[in-house]
Amino acid sequence: MKTELFYYRKILEMALMEDLGEGDVTTDNIVDPDLKANAVIKAKEEGIVAGIGIAGEVFAILDKEIQFRVIMDDGRKVRKGDILAEIKGRAEAILKGERTALNFLQRLSGIATKTARCVRLISKYKAKIVDTRKTAPGLRIFDKYAVRVGGGFNHRFNLSSGILIKDNHIISAGGIKNAIFKVKENAPHTLKIEVEVENISQLKTAIQYGADIIMLDNMTLEDMKKSVEIAKGKVLLEASGNVSEDKLIQIAKTGVDFISMGALTHSVKAFDVSLKFS
Amino acid sequence: MKTELFYYRKILEMALMEDLGEGDVTTDNIVDPDLKANAVIKAKEEGIVAGIGIAGEVFAILDKEIQFRVIMDDGRKVRKGDILAEIKGRAEAILKGERTALNFLQRLSGIATKTARCVRLISKYKAKIVDTRKTAPGLRIFDKYAVRVGGGFNHRFNLSSGILIKDNHIISAGGIKNAIFKVKENAPHTLKIEVEVENISQLKTAIQYGADIIMLDNMTLEDMKKSVEIAKGKVLLEASGNVSEDKLIQIAKTGVDFISMGALTHSVKAFDVSLKFS
Amino acid sequence: MKTELFYYRKILEMALMEDLGEGDVTTDNIVDPDLKANAVIKAKEEGIVAGIGIAGEVFAILDKEIQFRVIMDDGRKVRKGDILAEIKGRAEAILKGERTALNFLQRLSGIATKTARCVRLISKYKAKIVDTRKTAPGLRIFDKYAVRVGGGFNHRFNLSSGILIKDNHIISAGGIKNAIFKVKENAPHTLKIEVEVENISQLKTAIQYGADIIMLDNMTLEDMKKSVEIAKGKVLLEASGNVSEDKLIQIAKTGVDFISMGALTHSVKAFDVSLKFS
Amino acid sequence: MKTELFYYRKILEMALMEDLGEGDVTTDNIVDPDLKANAVIKAKEEGIVAGIGIAGEVFAILDKEIQFRVIMDDGRKVRKGDILAEIKGRAEAILKGERTALNFLQRLSGIATKTARCVRLISKYKAKIVDTRKTAPGLRIFDKYAVRVGGGFNHRFNLSSGILIKDNHIISAGGIKNAIFKVKENAPHTLKIEVEVENISQLKTAIQYGADIIMLDNMTLEDMKKSVEIAKGKVLLEASGNVSEDKLIQIAKTGVDFISMGALTHSVKAFDVSLKFS
Amino acid sequence: MKTELFYYRKILEMALMEDLGEGDVTTDNIVDPDLKANAVIKAKEEGIVAGIGIAGEVFAILDKEIQFRVIMDDGRKVRKGDILAEIKGRAEAILKGERTALNFLQRLSGIATKTARCVRLISKYKAKIVDTRKTAPGLRIFDKYAVRVGGGFNHRFNLSSGILIKDNHIISAGGIKNAIFKVKENAPHTLKIEVEVENISQLKTAIQYGADIIMLDNMTLEDMKKSVEIAKGKVLLEASGNVSEDKLIQIAKTGVDFISMGALTHSVKAFDVSLKFS
Amino acid sequence: MKTELFYYRKILEMALMEDLGEGDVTTDNIVDPDLKANAVIKAKEEGIVAGIGIAGEVFAILDKEIQFRVIMDDGRKVRKGDILAEIKGRAEAILKGERTALNFLQRLSGIATKTARCVRLISKYKAKIVDTRKTAPGLRIFDKYAVRVGGGFNHRFNLSSGILIKDNHIISAGGIKNAIFKVKENAPHTLKIEVEVENISQLKTAIQYGADIIMLDNMTLEDMKKSVEIAKGKVLLEASGNVSEDKLIQIAKTGVDFISMGALTHSVKAFDVSLKFS
Repeated sequence: MKTELFYYRKILEMALMEDLGEGDVTTDNIVDPDLKANAVIKAKEEGIVAGIGIAGEVFAILDKEIQFRVIMDDGRKVRKGDILAEIKGRAEAILKGERTALNFLQRLSGIATKTARCVRLISKYKAKIVDTRKTAPGLRIFDKYAVRVGGGFNHRFNLSSGILIKDNHIISAGGIKNAIFKVKENAPHTLKIEVEVENISQLKTAIQYGADIIMLDNMTLEDMKKSVEIAKGKVLLEASGNVSEDKLIQIAKTGVDFISMGALTHSVKAFDVSLKFS
Repeated sequence: MKTELFYYRKILEMALMEDLGEGDVTTDNIVDPDLKANAVIKAKEEGIVAGIGIAGEVFAILDKEIQFRVIMDDGRKVRKGDILAEIKGRAEAILKGERTALNFLQRLSGIATKTARCVRLISKYKAKIVDTRKTAPGLRIFDKYAVRVGGGFNHRFNLSSGILIKDNHIISAGGIKNAIFKVKENAPHTLKIEVEVENISQLKTAIQYGADIIMLDNMTLEDMKKSVEIAKGKVLLEASGNVSEDKLIQIAKTGVDFISMGALTHSVKAFDVSLKFS
Repeated sequence: MKTELFYYRKILEMALMEDLGEGDVTTDNIVDPDLKANAVIKAKEEGIVAGIGIAGEVFAILDKEIQFRVIMDDGRKVRKGDILAEIKGRAEAILKGERTALNFLQRLSGIATKTARCVRLISKYKAKIVDTRKTAPGLRIFDKYAVRVGGGFNHRFNLSSGILIKDNHIISAGGIKNAIFKVKENAPHTLKIEVEVENISQLKTAIQYGADIIMLDNMTLEDMKKSVEIAKGKVLLEASGNVSEDKLIQIAKTGVDFISMGALTHSVKAFDVSLKFS
Repeated sequence: MKTELFYYRKILEMALMEDLGEGDVTTDNIVDPDLKANAVIKAKEEGIVAGIGIAGEVFAILDKEIQFRVIMDDGRKVRKGDILAEIKGRAEAILKGERTALNFLQRLSGIATKTARCVRLISKYKAKIVDTRKTAPGLRIFDKYAVRVGGGFNHRFNLSSGILIKDNHIISAGGIKNAIFKVKENAPHTLKIEVEVENISQLKTAIQYGADIIMLDNMTLEDMKKSVEIAKGKVLLEASGNVSEDKLIQIAKTGVDFISMGALTHSVKAFDVSLKFS
Repeated sequence: MKTELFYYRKILEMALMEDLGEGDVTTDNIVDPDLKANAVIKAKEEGIVAGIGIAGEVFAILDKEIQFRVIMDDGRKVRKGDILAEIKGRAEAILKGERTALNFLQRLSGIATKTARCVRLISKYKAKIVDTRKTAPGLRIFDKYAVRVGGGFNHRFNLSSGILIKDNHIISAGGIKNAIFKVKENAPHTLKIEVEVENISQLKTAIQYGADIIMLDNMTLEDMKKSVEIAKGKVLLEASGNVSEDKLIQIAKTGVDFISMGALTHSVKAFDVSLKFS
Repeated sequence: MKTELFYYRKILEMALMEDLGEGDVTTDNIVDPDLKANAVIKAKEEGIVAGIGIAGEVFAILDKEIQFRVIMDDGRKVRKGDILAEIKGRAEAILKGERTALNFLQRLSGIATKTARCVRLISKYKAKIVDTRKTAPGLRIFDKYAVRVGGGFNHRFNLSSGILIKDNHIISAGGIKNAIFKVKENAPHTLKIEVEVENISQLKTAIQYGADIIMLDNMTLEDMKKSVEIAKGKVLLEASGNVSEDKLIQIAKTGVDFISMGALTHSVKAFDVSLKFS
């Protein structure tokens, strides 16, 4: 993420301003600006770290001289009590950055932890876990990064980086055939064409008219298996629709290529971390 | 929220740009820009609505002429299948705004639903449920709004709108007494002084030196009760620290004035909604 | 473009501020703010109109009550002397918006005119004309729109909406095979894989390892023809590299699927227009 | 341009974000982030360099540690094959900045090259080549810089940094006399007054009422010569109106003080450059 | 100012956000959002109104339906007790906009009032009162507008809209002659050349080498008179340097063309106004 | 202010852009970019310095290598002729930053000087001098900082960081009792409740219903004394309403806790400073 730092910093700065408001009335009136402190960020439960570098960057924005030593880098599995990073520098800056840094860290680690759990569950199968656009508004770039850290893969980033013909598009276009035809004719040739289908009949139509990927929306396991047989070698298949962790293995067993899970990013359980002066 | 609309719109526009990227390659190539559609937003589970007006505003940014009729306004309890809003207008604009509108709606309704559940759990007790600063970076103003919609109350918005002397401040100041003294001398007189304590001894010190509110951090129920007896009529008490729903009633029974729950906003379970053309 | 107006307006407003500076010292001191005027925008040469709606939007930002009647809409072929739009409203606002409106209009119509000429040249062949990322910094969304107005097609919008493995990537990856392999493993499955090759041997390698599109970079016509034979039915072919108008027909005759032309947007000849009070 | 860097960087960052989108799906998946590379930027035709420092700054935004050694600085005349700059650093950052850096460099060098050619054409005459406000929206500060690099001079930057009474102003004011009078009375006294005239009669009026500079709009060479005789020692004269390179010498011969050319910036032919790993 | 509204609104919105923070905790909890109110803005002292339209615009940002009726428009002289505007609409929006609206109004009316007093003082003389760049950072466009409302004139808006060679420039250039020479050669020909001098000898040098305007910096009245004699018909003269109101008449009597006063904008006495519900 | 630098810089950069416009036509054409200079910032009158670090930061934005040595830091009392800072570095950057740096310095030092004078006047009494929200739009964070430098204290920063029930709120709520009740029920418990009263009767009501602070608006000295007797030990009292310096001592003598003065920031007399090359 080093190369895009100039860009992420803008979001981090906005987050910091949101939390600092017009000054930290507690710290500014209590803590000597020259006082130095040592602090550690600790895991308070088991999981996968994501966003530790981002946390460090938050402090760097507030004070370039803060030393932020990463102990457990993004992707590392940690246990309760593990130290993720050591911080040395002016106490004032550490206190002011704490909440913003942890808010990123706890969200991203929460996403990575859940993703990794899902990935592990189906590691024996070929299916890849992919994310969706159901992310926290303004934080998609971070949310999708955390999915990758957890071993998942990214679906399209936004409406311009992937073609996905959904039910409402099909209605608007007057059918799958027409929808595919129009996209083929006009959309950038660099993008594959994905079509969302709800049944086997739609699947066949989509394949017939040249879809590259088919999203199986809320299909039964039965129908997913049939779809895999039909689609073999012709198109990629992606299972979708309220996929919960307990259904994952069964879906993976059907042989689909991808399983997309909105819950990876729309229903995040924050990873529990603390920052303590030592 | 009508009066602050000019301000919220900036965040909604950023969210829309994040999702639209450089254009919706699917919709732009399939859907006739003049095609009109009717759509409904439906609840797919039971809960409390929050953010339906924001969802409407998302569509208004894309097309002023879209008619967005709210059926279930913020704060309403809804059941699976209830229609939250009806939308009429150009299909293109509805399709482009859908994901962004729903991302706000599902997050905020998720927060309101959880908050309302917690509030109801302890409705017999005087304790109020309050939120924290553990919000999604950039979305605090919305997250805290959803807490209010759910019947909860807001703690300070950010570091400048409340004084909260925490463990690391106490270490930096060399003790509770000194920390309170400095804040009293210099901070705006319009703010109360809240001190986080971990035991009864600290509680007594904080009361002695003039704290207005005491945050009981991760205390046992036993100690909370003692704190309530000691504090009675002198200061307000706020229980805090990984408060989960199943501990709520017991904490409320201790007689504290406030219970703050980070999980209201840091571990949101998205409320399930759909947008369908009809 | 109606739906993305909120987004384009930000760019138009920036352009207006660039040109207005801190006020129009000529107009503000000469023209009565209540004076009304009629004006026309006229073509001063033959070509294809693009950006007339954008021009209208520029005036709408300055004064909502200005009536901007489009006579020749985007995509229309016009001759010298044709009136593109009629404007009625406060003279002050028309004078202040003139240059900014025309700067967009003359650039976009220039792009559309050139694109249309190229498209027409090879209309008998299957090859489509596509653009590149060689656009004016900050104006890509407009430049690429103008290409579509002229009958061309868009290549990827930016680095995140298309995979294109170029010479420097191949060097960095240690060969075409390795580069394709890595992208296949990790990039979003919604994107096709395009590889830039310089000779027939590279072409074969790229096809062998699963490229979806091959960019033939600066190849001889001879080699293009060979490539077409080899690639038939397996991958799409895109000719690229300083393609000038006089080489277009010969390239199209080779049977490639796409011809990308940087000059469409990097070397624009402004379309000549004027705005006159009547 | 060193002193205004903080300001230009904002534009460069916007351009980089436009091109990076949400990440470079090719480079990020192929290139090891620690891989180092050497690269050169080469001229592929003859011309005048402008924007090489800006190109360097683009890479510096992405990675502060990239070494960008300028070989041919802005203003230098180069031949095909000349190396303009050598780049050392992480391959990832070089690949991500390439297009944005070159888009600036090719546009600005194109402007400087054309300007220099025009300046040289009339180097025997006193007339100076000046630019106009017909620049790419958002890039005026760069476009006008390139004109200076090419040996040209800048006309007013925008509507607030120069008074220019044009035809539509004259109509609005009810005549040249009135227009000049109003501006004299009210505009900042630090600005000269320039009036656009179409014939000798208007020229005389403008001089009579105190214009400082007269713009001769689309006048015949004959009338320009007459104007020079009339204006001698009284006002400065500027020839204007679709001035092409082949008319330059004849116009310069008339003795005017300035010749303004919109084409310098509205019809740029990009200067051909490449970036190659070595 | 109607035409530049889109631009001013950005500053007004920033000011509103500065004052609203994350919500008005008083109004939001007390005032029924549907409650309507009537209010008046009243002058509490004598002076010249400036910014009443801006105040109205502040309320319009918060609620488009607020009726803001201007009674005393910008430039009007008012007495204590005069009603400047009547406001009708939702009480909530009026309360939230009050402070921001009045902060603009009281500053701008303060500037206009002082300017008008200075202008009146020397109304018998030809000297014009002009402002400087000593304005409140970020508010120059408003500060300079208020000067014009008060009957004063604007000096250059910023460093790019006027040439002013000051003492430090002369030192850097190695003398007045050299400084003027360089500017003449390279700066846009649309700008006059102003030189700051401290004595008669410098004045003569500046005239000799072609200055258009001379700023007499902190000169004695004696020297100003001499300067007027020397400069007559050759250059414009501007008196400058800590010009206070009590020195104005004497300076004007010397016959200089302009008197610039930093105090108009750097030492503003706010005009006293109130907003009361009726 | 070191920790919030990233945030203040945005305001400083905006101010610099306002003053630089599109380039400094004087300096750019006169001063060799490599020329080095030494300069000093000098006080031209007696007062308290505030903003010298901000001035230094302005130059740092323009050129990181400028050495800005603070001689008299914020809070120091200085006399006419004292050197506040020494500057070494490129003359160009010093000249371009001069006005912006001094505009901040002269405003903030003006505020600090006035505040310090007021604080000294009543140093024998317990009353603290506090500021208001009557600040220059966009500069509140700086204005309030300068008040603290001068020894004053800050009232609430904005509408979200303090509850202040004013006359118009009381009207809207239908009385003081109701207003207090509603705020108590719903506003964040971290904020004290302040009520503005105009007479003794309102004072008693406000105390009775639980106000924490009472603002005595434009009360007579007599009534203030009565208020102090009534309020003793129950609430804090704040005198307010056009408090001028000559009334300060008498008000302080009444025994109120705070005296708020809008004039500290709405009617600033700029502190006179100069920057000279040496």
